[in-house]
Amino acid sequence: MTTFVKNAWYVAAWSREVGRGFLSRTLLGEQVLLYRRLDGKPVALVDRCPHKLAPLSLGELKGDTVQCGYHGMMFDCAGACVRVPGQTNIPPTARVTSFPLVERYGAVWIWMGDPELADAGATITEVPHYGDPDWGLVDGNYLHFKSNYLNITDNLVDPAHTTYVHKNTIGNSAGEDVGVKVEQGDSHVLAYRWIKEAAPVPLVEKMANFKGLTDRWQYYYLHLPSTSYVDFGCIDTGVEPTEANKDEGFRSFSFNFLTPETEATTHYFWLHLRNYHAHDAEVSTDVVRLMTLTFEEDATLLEHVQREQERTGVREYTRLGIDNAPARIRRMVDRLIAREQAPAGAEAEEVAGS
Amino acid sequence: MTTFVKNAWYVAAWSREVGRGFLSRTLLGEQVLLYRRLDGKPVALVDRCPHKLAPLSLGELKGDTVQCGYHGMMFDCAGACVRVPGQTNIPPTARVTSFPLVERYGAVWIWMGDPELADAGATITEVPHYGDPDWGLVDGNYLHFKSNYLNITDNLVDPAHTTYVHKNTIGNSAGEDVGVKVEQGDSHVLAYRWIKEAAPVPLVEKMANFKGLTDRWQYYYLHLPSTSYVDFGCIDTGVEPTEANKDEGFRSFSFNFLTPETEATTHYFWLHLRNYHAHDAEVSTDVVRLMTLTFEEDATLLEHVQREQERTGVREYTRLGIDNAPARIRRMVDRLIAREQAPAGAEAEEVAGS
Amino acid sequence: MTTFVKNAWYVAAWSREVGRGFLSRTLLGEQVLLYRRLDGKPVALVDRCPHKLAPLSLGELKGDTVQCGYHGMMFDCAGACVRVPGQTNIPPTARVTSFPLVERYGAVWIWMGDPELADAGATITEVPHYGDPDWGLVDGNYLHFKSNYLNITDNLVDPAHTTYVHKNTIGNSAGEDVGVKVEQGDSHVLAYRWIKEAAPVPLVEKMANFKGLTDRWQYYYLHLPSTSYVDFGCIDTGVEPTEANKDEGFRSFSFNFLTPETEATTHYFWLHLRNYHAHDAEVSTDVVRLMTLTFEEDATLLEHVQREQERTGVREYTRLGIDNAPARIRRMVDRLIAREQAPAGAEAEEVAGS
Repeated sequence: MTTFVKNAWYVAAWSREVGRGFLSRTLLGEQVLLYRRLDGKPVALVDRCPHKLAPLSLGELKGDTVQCGYHGMMFDCAGACVRVPGQTNIPPTARVTSFPLVERYGAVWIWMGDPELADAGATITEVPHYGDPDWGLVDGNYLHFKSNYLNITDNLVDPAHTTYVHKNTIGNSAGEDVGVKVEQGDSHVLAYRWIKEAAPVPLVEKMANFKGLTDRWQYYYLHLPSTSYVDFGCIDTGVEPTEANKDEGFRSFSFNFLTPETEATTHYFWLHLRNYHAHDAEVSTDVVRLMTLTFEEDATLLEHVQREQERTGVREYTRLGIDNAPARIRRMVDRLIAREQAPAGAEAEEVAGS
Repeated sequence: MTTFVKNAWYVAAWSREVGRGFLSRTLLGEQVLLYRRLDGKPVALVDRCPHKLAPLSLGELKGDTVQCGYHGMMFDCAGACVRVPGQTNIPPTARVTSFPLVERYGAVWIWMGDPELADAGATITEVPHYGDPDWGLVDGNYLHFKSNYLNITDNLVDPAHTTYVHKNTIGNSAGEDVGVKVEQGDSHVLAYRWIKEAAPVPLVEKMANFKGLTDRWQYYYLHLPSTSYVDFGCIDTGVEPTEANKDEGFRSFSFNFLTPETEATTHYFWLHLRNYHAHDAEVSTDVVRLMTLTFEEDATLLEHVQREQERTGVREYTRLGIDNAPARIRRMVDRLIAREQAPAGAEAEEVAGS
Repeated sequence: MTTFVKNAWYVAAWSREVGRGFLSRTLLGEQVLLYRRLDGKPVALVDRCPHKLAPLSLGELKGDTVQCGYHGMMFDCAGACVRVPGQTNIPPTARVTSFPLVERYGAVWIWMGDPELADAGATITEVPHYGDPDWGLVDGNYLHFKSNYLNITDNLVDPAHTTYVHKNTIGNSAGEDVGVKVEQGDSHVLAYRWIKEAAPVPLVEKMANFKGLTDRWQYYYLHLPSTSYVDFGCIDTGVEPTEANKDEGFRSFSFNFLTPETEATTHYFWLHLRNYHAHDAEVSTDVVRLMTLTFEEDATLLEHVQREQERTGVREYTRLGIDNAPARIRRMVDRLIAREQAPAGAEAEEVAGS
């Protein structure tokens, strides 16, 4: 039983990783070959020749077509075989699956489910202020987690863990007792809290210039199945928390795009936008260093969690209040997977009944 | 099917290994966390938070309680959860198993079976002359064997193997044809022999001062499930072999405490007592060197034996006379395991019928 | 289910590898011990003592008998136990399997099937010009393939792959469209082609002295289950292609002896005979370098193929014309295996019916 939602857009690679050479990467348990056509458009094919199963990535790119390195079969960007050396007829089974791709936010996104349902507009989460010259961008970053992606999504709507896991970086004990509220949409969960009338945290003090107390917010969004973003910032106490006022305060958006590699491992792509010292390269370097440190703390912990889950066959022995948001995500993901795997008739019925 | 006897005391660690930091070790297939309370008493808990299965050893010791490094849940020395940050009620499932411990012979012993049955006095084998200032002690030594513990117990009541496996260290061909006698008690097997009217072996010649021929003994005890000790020594031929006379001769006790790690690996703790050159550090160094060399010869061989057992699914194709003692141990261990795993009613009946 | 044909001679080792020390090697999934008797004859026994399964290769050679390093049991060259230290009777189960061996072509060949059927004359493929002083010999070479041996036999009757896999060494695009003919015998498959009235290839130009156009042949033989040889050469266009005339032209025989190690790995022994510059050591060095490079290209590719076969549980999704010869071999091998594994009665019936 897979835990993957297939009808979704996932980051397959950063745009800069995909070029005229071959990139082979495991995504949702499948081996995928990525490259660019001569006109620059990215292409994704299953990285496995249908003849003898040689990886196509061991072959060569000839114009826009891929030539297998074993017997020279050639496949076009749609995965159709266009040449079998030594014979004129092309067997109908000589084809590889190709996957829809779009490029957005400096990344190549892949759709590995039913191609009829691919619609980038509908389901790639919008990144606010992306491309806005007043905001500083850090992107192109990647970590490899040895854990199922749902252990990571658990973590990314769970502000409580920062106090303990990240006590060396972004956590402290101040927020320990401020409750977290949870909201659920059709395809997202939000866990958030305001810490009001509080002194600015050290980062804010260093980077901004507040005279008195501040109202600080942490909004942890998880868009199904596995795009996380954290809206973090503060404004002077008393200022109305409109989007515009928040943009005038101290604010950052931290996006984490999780792509399952296997059931036990996950690709972790991330980018970060900030409205302070937007053009200061040193601050950017600092953001990368700090975020990497923080995510590595998560990676270490979740690798152990994964190992204990495999060892025991259990995911949790007890449930706490802070599991509200993670539990919602798991239920929503389970429902998506059940719907994807249901026979066509069953789905129609469910739609009719709802 | 496990080959572990659970209702028994095993060495979990040397006392010096357990302190105010965390020691995490696999024992009988379970991950165990060891540390000391402020008053010095050792504590053993399952090393796995019941919430998300994070290893507690990644957390922190706060006084005598353990704080999970993921969400800050706190557990006392009995494994009861005493705090869940962010909520006041503590779910009844929020607990970890704790294990009875005793300290003896410089080691921390653990009981991983039914806690009602834990009774250190009854089943930890007595180490003669432990703490006696006239006897030289070497302890705190450890080897890791890549073999099931019963392959090692086989070996430790099998004087015959020393001629071949340890031909570079403690074996030689002299004893090849002196028969081994076997005695069986309720919870131990003894394989022993006397080599009478023999010239002293080189070790004895070097360390002691016998004028003529000697009577030499080798007593290999195996106390169930896996404590081995070897009583070795010699006296002048003609002297009556009372315990007191043997203590006056040349004598050593070599103890090996085996603790299963997994079905295929074993912790091997050992200590050694001798009545010759008790305070000579050089002799102690020699003992460590020689014993380590000897046990490493066993470890190498038994690792291959384990691998071939796994490869073939067979433990032996033929049985020899020298297997008498090992076979008795295997039968006794099988009976212990069957009794532990029997339903309560079945056991009562067996007792009534016996 | 194994893919191994057991009733066949396989190269176990090069003759020079087998001496008075022990060589332990996995062959057809079994661990085999190889050594030489005092009179020089090679011996093969299962490398596993029947007592406790210790590898006999950890023991010692005493004259012609093997002494186990655990308890000193001794086995003669037929695998019979001739001594059990400490007891006089020898249990009938105390024996190890021995395997028939012959030495030929500088190699030790082993028969691991029914010993009644071992007949070296019948089934070891003849190597032409072996020992002929006019022909240059390169032998004693070995590679380890991480692939099932049938993926390699596929490859060795498949001239088409050379164009792509070996484009850096022996392949080029010239032969791309010259068809391959296939012939099948009782126990071999031959895939061959003639490229007529062609300019000599660079290798031939460098090594020989043709004035005009040449007729070039490639004959890929696969003798069941896994001896491959390639007869390659060229003669002046117009010369009748008799064996004698071909021997007068430019010619080489390249033999590859495949011995399954496990289902997923294969020993690859090879030798090479040539009729040009027979005594030129530099040419020999060149042959080794070029062939090794070429076979390593195959090994890399087939390791990936093996991995994808294991990952998908599929061997091929589509079949091409060039699979004719490989498919014949697979069918013939399947039939051999079915016959070996059939009950005795069933086989008799089949013979009667055929």
